[in-house]
Amino acid sequence: MTLMTPLISSNCRVCYVREPSRDTASANTFAQLVAASCVRPGKKTFNRHSLLGSLSGFSAIRCGSLQPNMTENGVNSHRERVLTTDTMNPNVKKVEYAVRGPIVQRAVQIEKELKAGAKKPFSEVIKANIGDAHAMGQRPITFLRQVLALCTYPELLNDNKFPEDAKNRARRILQSCGGGSIGAYSASQGIECVRQDVARYIERRDGGIPSDPDNIYLSTGASDAISTMLKLLVSGEGHTRTGVMISIPQYPLYSAALADLGAVQINYYLSEERCWSLDVSELRRALNEARQHCCPRALCIINPGNPTGQVQSRQCIEDVIRFAAEEHLFLMADEVYQDNVYADGCEFHSFKKVLFEMGPKYSDTVELASFHSTSKCYMGECGFRGGYMEVINLDPEVKVQLTKLVSVRLCPPVPGQALLDLVVNPPEPGEPSYATFIKERTATLSDLAHKAELTEQILNTVPGISCNPVQGAMYSFPRINIPERAVKEAKEKGQAPDMFYCMKLLEETGICLVPGSGFGQREGTYHFRMTILPPTDKLKILLGKVKEFHQKFTEQYS
Amino acid sequence: MTLMTPLISSNCRVCYVREPSRDTASANTFAQLVAASCVRPGKKTFNRHSLLGSLSGFSAIRCGSLQPNMTENGVNSHRERVLTTDTMNPNVKKVEYAVRGPIVQRAVQIEKELKAGAKKPFSEVIKANIGDAHAMGQRPITFLRQVLALCTYPELLNDNKFPEDAKNRARRILQSCGGGSIGAYSASQGIECVRQDVARYIERRDGGIPSDPDNIYLSTGASDAISTMLKLLVSGEGHTRTGVMISIPQYPLYSAALADLGAVQINYYLSEERCWSLDVSELRRALNEARQHCCPRALCIINPGNPTGQVQSRQCIEDVIRFAAEEHLFLMADEVYQDNVYADGCEFHSFKKVLFEMGPKYSDTVELASFHSTSKCYMGECGFRGGYMEVINLDPEVKVQLTKLVSVRLCPPVPGQALLDLVVNPPEPGEPSYATFIKERTATLSDLAHKAELTEQILNTVPGISCNPVQGAMYSFPRINIPERAVKEAKEKGQAPDMFYCMKLLEETGICLVPGSGFGQREGTYHFRMTILPPTDKLKILLGKVKEFHQKFTEQYS
Repeated sequence: MTLMTPLISSNCRVCYVREPSRDTASANTFAQLVAASCVRPGKKTFNRHSLLGSLSGFSAIRCGSLQPNMTENGVNSHRERVLTTDTMNPNVKKVEYAVRGPIVQRAVQIEKELKAGAKKPFSEVIKANIGDAHAMGQRPITFLRQVLALCTYPELLNDNKFPEDAKNRARRILQSCGGGSIGAYSASQGIECVRQDVARYIERRDGGIPSDPDNIYLSTGASDAISTMLKLLVSGEGHTRTGVMISIPQYPLYSAALADLGAVQINYYLSEERCWSLDVSELRRALNEARQHCCPRALCIINPGNPTGQVQSRQCIEDVIRFAAEEHLFLMADEVYQDNVYADGCEFHSFKKVLFEMGPKYSDTVELASFHSTSKCYMGECGFRGGYMEVINLDPEVKVQLTKLVSVRLCPPVPGQALLDLVVNPPEPGEPSYATFIKERTATLSDLAHKAELTEQILNTVPGISCNPVQGAMYSFPRINIPERAVKEAKEKGQAPDMFYCMKLLEETGICLVPGSGFGQREGTYHFRMTILPPTDKLKILLGKVKEFHQKFTEQYS
Repeated sequence: MTLMTPLISSNCRVCYVREPSRDTASANTFAQLVAASCVRPGKKTFNRHSLLGSLSGFSAIRCGSLQPNMTENGVNSHRERVLTTDTMNPNVKKVEYAVRGPIVQRAVQIEKELKAGAKKPFSEVIKANIGDAHAMGQRPITFLRQVLALCTYPELLNDNKFPEDAKNRARRILQSCGGGSIGAYSASQGIECVRQDVARYIERRDGGIPSDPDNIYLSTGASDAISTMLKLLVSGEGHTRTGVMISIPQYPLYSAALADLGAVQINYYLSEERCWSLDVSELRRALNEARQHCCPRALCIINPGNPTGQVQSRQCIEDVIRFAAEEHLFLMADEVYQDNVYADGCEFHSFKKVLFEMGPKYSDTVELASFHSTSKCYMGECGFRGGYMEVINLDPEVKVQLTKLVSVRLCPPVPGQALLDLVVNPPEPGEPSYATFIKERTATLSDLAHKAELTEQILNTVPGISCNPVQGAMYSFPRINIPERAVKEAKEKGQAPDMFYCMKLLEETGICLVPGSGFGQREGTYHFRMTILPPTDKLKILLGKVKEFHQKFTEQYS
């Protein structure tokens, strides 16, 4: 309380807090309020604005917060920061991103402790928290890297160690770059010849349904394009605020982007009982409830699923499109795992293809944005941040706005654009790199398929863990039983029960997984997300350790 | 009006517009309103929400818009898009970005027309609209590209054509990457060893003032970090909405980001009469006016200046820091042109250095974020989208929020991070690449210095054009006299007079410049921004054509 005396007893230039009226009552109220705020332990800053807002006698109060501090003279005084958690953007505070959240930060810390010689019951941290293929030992595809090296250092075009097809690709890309350099900005929508190659790739993939390069926007990974599209969609206030439907469990980019934009997140639940499939009646339930309090305008689908690994049937996609058309929703199809389909009987169907096969009633009207990336599939080139979005039936005037919006960030990284070009335009039969390319691509994908099966099988041998088939993508999302006593202990610690579980797993085994609560799950159920990416040997060890841990954990808390 | 009949006479499932009550009066009002909206020529969509919002008898109206359209049966009907310029994010509509605006779109179109064989009074378009060095023929620095090629395709580490220091840099970077691949995600804040190198670079630059790698955030170009920092700062509504002070003329990223965030843009004017210098009394005027209607919280400075090319004196920076401290403003210093200083007697002083030299009263309290990029200086590697921000005195809890926010986008492009590492950790004396590196770097910078002088000199020979010295950065921003008759004709066309001027210049000469109105300028004055980047020969031709055009234009409209 003494700390605050200067604030009360004098005009404060810096803080714009004027001396209160001499009315003792209001001065006392003020002192009490300040004191009440000051004594909150562990709370270093407090919001003077909210604190003083309703007090009389203060004619101008700036939005800031105070920090107890020593002045140069060694006198207790206050120092004010402009930007604090009290004054910052409130939407940003609501953002959560579990894939790189507290558990991963702890994992990084443990790694440092190990390096510094700390004794642990394990010798290394295994990060199965994120779909980061190369970090888990997957090798880059030779052809992709050769072309990128040629684009980066064109002197290598004279080097006969590089195959001709790689050189031709590099020359074509460089010719499309300003000054023949990937160091020049590209068009904001992306390099024209890359967009043309993307369009041709989509046409091949979708059995000849036309794709217009003008509808292709290259992006900084898929996350960038998804956030941009969501940003365009958000408007209104209160009951007219835009609502966006996302699956639960979801990839937390969606919830994070919606929180950031102040949009309303509308949850629809995938059916765990039916292999995480999507049911239109659940979409309808979620939509009807949401219409009471917001303006639902978009429906996001992740197929193959992240974190759930399901692959949607063609019928399901048709149903979703019909639903979107009937209910007047903009469709966003996150299809970054389109090459990652492993299970027998499963096949990737693009929303675009199904939409067009449903005839002009749908293909002329339903607005769709679909997203792809260089980070997943067989490439796993996350670091290059390459990606694209195709927009269908987008209002031409909105397209102008979209192009303007992306131009503010100048352009997506050009090396990522070049990489994307190779992904959509790989070596063809007869070209010198073809055989190696196919060999590497096939090996990577069949290795992933093997690990998907292995993961499901081993997890399902553990009593208290049940795991749906990993039909596609790169993750398993098993359900775990957490004993009541553990749930209670977690709650006492203020942790989600599956966060408590995963944190304990990390501390005891060095395995880093992400708790299901970071993706959303039905109330009272618990899960974790685990990538299938570690090399098979390591994956087996990891799964063995999870099994052992789960049994021990269950015993301990039963 | 017949077009709308179905809407009025029946329930419409898709549009959620229910039949109005049978009350004839309200039905008529509705029909009139619709008609009034329909007949607006050239307006293809209209906002039913705002149209119908106040009408009785419509119990649920979705936020959408209508488009006249033919149905499959050939009957006039309406089709509704979810996302139109009426329903989209209104903030995005307010975003403007002149550097890639209509004039550049027209330039691209003209290039296509030329390719298709169109006859023009010129044979090529010269784009002097954007600081895109490589596109203008500047050569990449060999060392940078060698290391990047080695990182991209590590098989080249066995190639004895590459110097050892390049290989060592590549090995060090790869060791810091997950799985030894630049295709892995990095930490969201950036690769640790790169952040360490950035901190050491800053320490060297600032005469030993310490820099903490934990205060360094790598970014996707500087634009990304600037937008992120602004996003953190924006809060409040109405009179408490965050205001951000930006210079006029400004680089339009700032106005665009503020519009996008719905923040209040506070303009302070640079003094053209005194070589675009910054005057604290003008800052104070702008701030005091802004305090009437918003909550000013940040002050953005671009030094060396874009688009104005001035280099701030040490005294000026001190004054600005003192002002920020007194007025409780967060400082944002855009210092991406820190190596681009040409004029005699001018020197780059970083805000960080001056802040710390002012003593703990300032260095312990003033919050500062400073920005740098791989796109400018001698590198000109725009396409790689590399950059960093250093934060000083940032609240530790806000830092946690910042780290969380950047993690949603996973990480900046890793090739750009690697490139940044080389920029801050270039070859040292004694290393094999040193001599070539210094030669290339010096040649690039002295070429720029020469072109800066040339541009100023030639422009100042033109009656009706006056150009301040290009002390730094990459642009001249000359003032142009536009005759009254031309101003009038421009206004009749709905164009800013300098847009009218630049568009005419483009059509007649193929030279693409950006009108001053895209950066902001004092009412009644006109300018254009022109980069000094074209090769000297081409620059001379360009300046000659501008001269000729300006004389002709002045005659024509006098």
